[in-house]
Amino acid sequence: MALNRKLRMGMVGGGQGAFIGAVHRMAANLDGKIELVAGCFSSDPKKSKASGKELFLSSDRIYTNYEEMAKTEAALPADKRIDFVSIVTPNHMHFPVAAAFLKAGINVVCDKPMTFDLAEAKQLRTIAKRSKKVFALTHNYTGYPMVKEARDIVSKGKIGKILKIVAEYPQGWLIDAIENDDQKQAAWRTDPKRAGASCCMGDIGTHAENLGRYITGLEIDEICAEFTTFVPGRKLEDDGNCLIRYKGGAKGILFASQISAGEENNLNIRIYGTKGSLEWFQEHPNELVMKFQDKPRQIIRRGNGYVSKAAAGSSRLPAGHQEAFLEAFANIYVAASDAIADEVQGKFPRKSGYDFPGIEDGVYGMAFIETVVKSAGTKQKWTKFPKV
Amino acid sequence: MALNRKLRMGMVGGGQGAFIGAVHRMAANLDGKIELVAGCFSSDPKKSKASGKELFLSSDRIYTNYEEMAKTEAALPADKRIDFVSIVTPNHMHFPVAAAFLKAGINVVCDKPMTFDLAEAKQLRTIAKRSKKVFALTHNYTGYPMVKEARDIVSKGKIGKILKIVAEYPQGWLIDAIENDDQKQAAWRTDPKRAGASCCMGDIGTHAENLGRYITGLEIDEICAEFTTFVPGRKLEDDGNCLIRYKGGAKGILFASQISAGEENNLNIRIYGTKGSLEWFQEHPNELVMKFQDKPRQIIRRGNGYVSKAAAGSSRLPAGHQEAFLEAFANIYVAASDAIADEVQGKFPRKSGYDFPGIEDGVYGMAFIETVVKSAGTKQKWTKFPKV
Amino acid sequence: MALNRKLRMGMVGGGQGAFIGAVHRMAANLDGKIELVAGCFSSDPKKSKASGKELFLSSDRIYTNYEEMAKTEAALPADKRIDFVSIVTPNHMHFPVAAAFLKAGINVVCDKPMTFDLAEAKQLRTIAKRSKKVFALTHNYTGYPMVKEARDIVSKGKIGKILKIVAEYPQGWLIDAIENDDQKQAAWRTDPKRAGASCCMGDIGTHAENLGRYITGLEIDEICAEFTTFVPGRKLEDDGNCLIRYKGGAKGILFASQISAGEENNLNIRIYGTKGSLEWFQEHPNELVMKFQDKPRQIIRRGNGYVSKAAAGSSRLPAGHQEAFLEAFANIYVAASDAIADEVQGKFPRKSGYDFPGIEDGVYGMAFIETVVKSAGTKQKWTKFPKV
Amino acid sequence: MALNRKLRMGMVGGGQGAFIGAVHRMAANLDGKIELVAGCFSSDPKKSKASGKELFLSSDRIYTNYEEMAKTEAALPADKRIDFVSIVTPNHMHFPVAAAFLKAGINVVCDKPMTFDLAEAKQLRTIAKRSKKVFALTHNYTGYPMVKEARDIVSKGKIGKILKIVAEYPQGWLIDAIENDDQKQAAWRTDPKRAGASCCMGDIGTHAENLGRYITGLEIDEICAEFTTFVPGRKLEDDGNCLIRYKGGAKGILFASQISAGEENNLNIRIYGTKGSLEWFQEHPNELVMKFQDKPRQIIRRGNGYVSKAAAGSSRLPAGHQEAFLEAFANIYVAASDAIADEVQGKFPRKSGYDFPGIEDGVYGMAFIETVVKSAGTKQKWTKFPKV
Repeated sequence: MALNRKLRMGMVGGGQGAFIGAVHRMAANLDGKIELVAGCFSSDPKKSKASGKELFLSSDRIYTNYEEMAKTEAALPADKRIDFVSIVTPNHMHFPVAAAFLKAGINVVCDKPMTFDLAEAKQLRTIAKRSKKVFALTHNYTGYPMVKEARDIVSKGKIGKILKIVAEYPQGWLIDAIENDDQKQAAWRTDPKRAGASCCMGDIGTHAENLGRYITGLEIDEICAEFTTFVPGRKLEDDGNCLIRYKGGAKGILFASQISAGEENNLNIRIYGTKGSLEWFQEHPNELVMKFQDKPRQIIRRGNGYVSKAAAGSSRLPAGHQEAFLEAFANIYVAASDAIADEVQGKFPRKSGYDFPGIEDGVYGMAFIETVVKSAGTKQKWTKFPKV
Repeated sequence: MALNRKLRMGMVGGGQGAFIGAVHRMAANLDGKIELVAGCFSSDPKKSKASGKELFLSSDRIYTNYEEMAKTEAALPADKRIDFVSIVTPNHMHFPVAAAFLKAGINVVCDKPMTFDLAEAKQLRTIAKRSKKVFALTHNYTGYPMVKEARDIVSKGKIGKILKIVAEYPQGWLIDAIENDDQKQAAWRTDPKRAGASCCMGDIGTHAENLGRYITGLEIDEICAEFTTFVPGRKLEDDGNCLIRYKGGAKGILFASQISAGEENNLNIRIYGTKGSLEWFQEHPNELVMKFQDKPRQIIRRGNGYVSKAAAGSSRLPAGHQEAFLEAFANIYVAASDAIADEVQGKFPRKSGYDFPGIEDGVYGMAFIETVVKSAGTKQKWTKFPKV
Repeated sequence: MALNRKLRMGMVGGGQGAFIGAVHRMAANLDGKIELVAGCFSSDPKKSKASGKELFLSSDRIYTNYEEMAKTEAALPADKRIDFVSIVTPNHMHFPVAAAFLKAGINVVCDKPMTFDLAEAKQLRTIAKRSKKVFALTHNYTGYPMVKEARDIVSKGKIGKILKIVAEYPQGWLIDAIENDDQKQAAWRTDPKRAGASCCMGDIGTHAENLGRYITGLEIDEICAEFTTFVPGRKLEDDGNCLIRYKGGAKGILFASQISAGEENNLNIRIYGTKGSLEWFQEHPNELVMKFQDKPRQIIRRGNGYVSKAAAGSSRLPAGHQEAFLEAFANIYVAASDAIADEVQGKFPRKSGYDFPGIEDGVYGMAFIETVVKSAGTKQKWTKFPKV
Repeated sequence: MALNRKLRMGMVGGGQGAFIGAVHRMAANLDGKIELVAGCFSSDPKKSKASGKELFLSSDRIYTNYEEMAKTEAALPADKRIDFVSIVTPNHMHFPVAAAFLKAGINVVCDKPMTFDLAEAKQLRTIAKRSKKVFALTHNYTGYPMVKEARDIVSKGKIGKILKIVAEYPQGWLIDAIENDDQKQAAWRTDPKRAGASCCMGDIGTHAENLGRYITGLEIDEICAEFTTFVPGRKLEDDGNCLIRYKGGAKGILFASQISAGEENNLNIRIYGTKGSLEWFQEHPNELVMKFQDKPRQIIRRGNGYVSKAAAGSSRLPAGHQEAFLEAFANIYVAASDAIADEVQGKFPRKSGYDFPGIEDGVYGMAFIETVVKSAGTKQKWTKFPKV
């Protein structure tokens, strides 16, 4: 149920020079229903203060320690304290920060991958469940209207039984060892102490996996993975290729790369069923292609009257007025805001559910990362996906 | 010079059910530097109140009369009153509202076309100049980074002397007489009392004209236009085609349509020079295609290190993370905000200028509309573009 | 009715260094049902001989004078003489050569534009009709299966009543004055003595016109044209833009250019009807795009089971195995061969007709050229299309 | 060295209703330098005769037994007998037919895959080498100008050291069990007695492998394959996915499918190097995309002056006049014809070599098929590629 005021948001991470923090803020701003009021933008107090000031925060709401922030905010009166915190730190900090806020009774929106490893993910699940607070994970690619349309099409059986998923996510930005040139994004992502056991699969392969599962609902049975570190001196893989066996017999190919020179953010997914197939390309996000053996291809385009309720409900603009990355990201915030508003009003969770990635997606994603890492290290063809 | 607070925005028009008002609000929200604090969303008091409440406005800042709003806001203390107003009404109201706010000493952002006719446009120019306030016109298609890149390329002579411009803007949404079905957007746009002397050219042809001029700087010498009203009973043209002669010898084709069934918002521009050509397609806004006779085509893509300063400075996301309509619209707000912040601080206008469409663009645009209407009504091939 | 032997073909023009002659030969060769046995490849006897030898012709069938060729071939026994001649000379020679062969009782395939001017075209029509021989004109773009599909769709009313046609044909190869550099193709096309009254419209604009008429059947009522010669010293226009009024109320834009730097052979046509629209792009010839206001776009692709009989009957390869320019060109030869085989067997013309451009298309095309030239030279907006 | 006459071609297989036989004939016809004069089109004498008659063959050159044909043709005088035979039968007949003709001293053009299995391939290599005759294999996708351009770019180091190859070849035509409906193409391809040990990989995966090797020269070290038979009752795989390790450290993904509903002939290859990457899509064959991290993408288009000698030499038409499947197929015939003409004149092989796939490509291809089949049947991750 909507509130009669803006939701109050806090942020941990995302100080000057960060990438994803700014993205979260723009996504939260877009619809005018969320207001950033507090933050701990950096572990460096000076930097945190400067960042907060730039964002027009009152200085007493700019923190230099996330634990203090959780405690202080929780103690503020109900009409002042943050309704939720967005966590946009490097991976290794997701767990401690999320745990601190959940334990303080504050709802959480967290960037992916959810934690440093699977063990942490399971622990966070326990904490989140106990807290009865909202936990949303920004697997943002599921926020696109045409991805929701794809899911709707699959769920209605319009392309039949799913036989094969081809998900790919090539990027090229790590073709050179820019982590040595003080490029912050590259530095922490290639550092096993901050990123976890995987660079490429943890950062982007996990999006490709999540996207396939969101659209089809298929769960992985076994994985056969190959990791390569092409750039000399790098400690984690910068390229990963997987064969996948899904439960129920479907097959999959999933590959991700950060050394595919000239590729930008080329996340693509193709889903083949017994009656037809679907293609969605992140760099052309307003279109969904549907192919058939016996009739013309269909190009389903966002914003038209014929799209599903899910796709229509997550659009802001008429057809042809392109929406893109930030709108999809904002859709995760919109859906999470629904839950947070319910929580604030003591009505969480609502029976009809919510459409945002949550704690179970996070656990599944960490199991995926752990399994591909394990598979990449063995001579055995197939590695079983664990029960989570 | 940036302010150490958010700019305070008011809005006239844009109540429940409107399209462009919501677009302006999202564009203004995106970067977290503008706050909507007041509005007169409808001439129907009930509707205005309901709209304002939904937007979390304080009830004393929700107005039911724009003149009262201008007067009241102007009288508020400096730390409370709006810094600017956004005007998002149907065309015929642009002039009176803009004039009222400018005269009250309040900066203005106004939707296009600027006024009802050219006479009003010139009058508004006088008022705006006298006011020494900021006047920004949301010819939003000039806000795209790749459009700014195109302008930069042309200005550096990379495609040589411009010979030909082909600008097209087909839409299909008025193929049926939906103005009779209580479709508000269609109703006022096809009504000569609210839209002015042109429907199709005034609504979208003017964007195509503005886009070409922004990129090339070319000015029109003569126009040969043909208007058609395809839908029976409609009072204004729903399709318009023009041949253009630019000053200096370049030639042009400009067409716009609202009855091109299945077209969404297919604004495209192609610019041919003696050394090469440029193509920008609004439905693929992150790319700019450059063609040559003697070397491979180049696809210039937003977010890469090689783009011009103008393109880089108007981007928010890395390459491959698509930006689109709202980001471009927001860029107009960003540029206008620069000027408004300067004005608030008594430093407007700055010497180095600003990159947003203003009062002169509005006058030129109204002259364009007047000239195509005139040409469409004569048997003479060429109609002179007036001095404005 | 098919013959139990290959058809015997002669050729006039198309010697070494020529472009279109080689195209005609490949098109004729493709299906193995036509055999080149005679030719007059150049007015330069040495060159004609050399060309014929390269093509493995018997030396007594290589001519140096087309009149002699017509006479000699006509006098050969029925089992030896050519069944038809292909005329691939510059424009000014089309009429005398075609007339000579028709008068000698030999069927003709002729490149476009049909003649030097409209008067010649009408004269040739009289000769062709009197001769009762086959006359085929290689408006090759009507040979594409997806163009035939488009025609079928329009004829079945699937996109409703046609409202608008946008046909464009930009090329860039004449952006420099290469006619001065001994580029033969450029030299004769820019020479009014060999090309006729128009360069750009006569060479390629006429294809765009023919294509629109083939698909829709619409006839032109009035034209408003603007010609430009951008390259200094050139005697004919290298760029032409037209507004068109069709009989029955449809409107059109047709433009062609040879100075659009970087464009290759970018013939595109868009046809808008009351129920939907069609797009065919020559550079992606295996697809036909169909757009609607209220349902997904359809991509109709050559070689699939769902296409019309006309499209299926003019395909050689399964879907996805792309066909292109030469196959379409060959389709003109296939259709003309049907007629020629009938003629050889005394059964021409058959009642059910043939699907190739003929003498009437040629007359219409010359009237088009004459009308645009006339319109380009007048200050009057609209120039009436003549009765032909 | 060119001959002063057409080459005389025979054909085995390719009777009425066959697909690839007609393709070979059109490819051979295109340039007017090859003449079909003899054939054994079917093992059914009636059908062979009817097919030969349709092709205008003299009845004494229509055979009903390939051994008889080899013997008879070899005994004909030098100015009458075929210069080469094209073998277009199902796979299991390639070896005996090729062996018979080579042993009879007749040059061979053979469809792929070369033989039924690797053992046969090696045996055929011995026979071919001993014969000193030409053996060409129609891996037609290497005949495209833009594929040759890609090879040239890689060989010149323009994209640096190759790191990764992604080759894919999805089709959808076997999504239903059409082999049970008397669809001949499907029937033999899914029959292990005629197709060999693999359906999907043998039919199309082998093209993808060959294409990658042609462009990069990389050789496979190890393969990890997964085969699936999705259509119940089918005896061979209809979908195959592979991870590949190349010698020297590059990695690969290669997948092929015949059950990807709605895919036509979607062969695509992407090649990633340290300095840039290349993309070639068979369904858009006239373009080659080159991507870089630090400069605009380049679209290299066939027919332009800037392409490599290899690409220019295998083109027939100017830029923008699209070439496609048959032209590329014909390029294999052109290159093989060079060798055959040399052989006829006693000058085979020439020192500078030829650009067509030959016996070693065939052996390599059969080793590829054997290795993927072996890998698909084992629990071990990596299967070594054999020395061949």
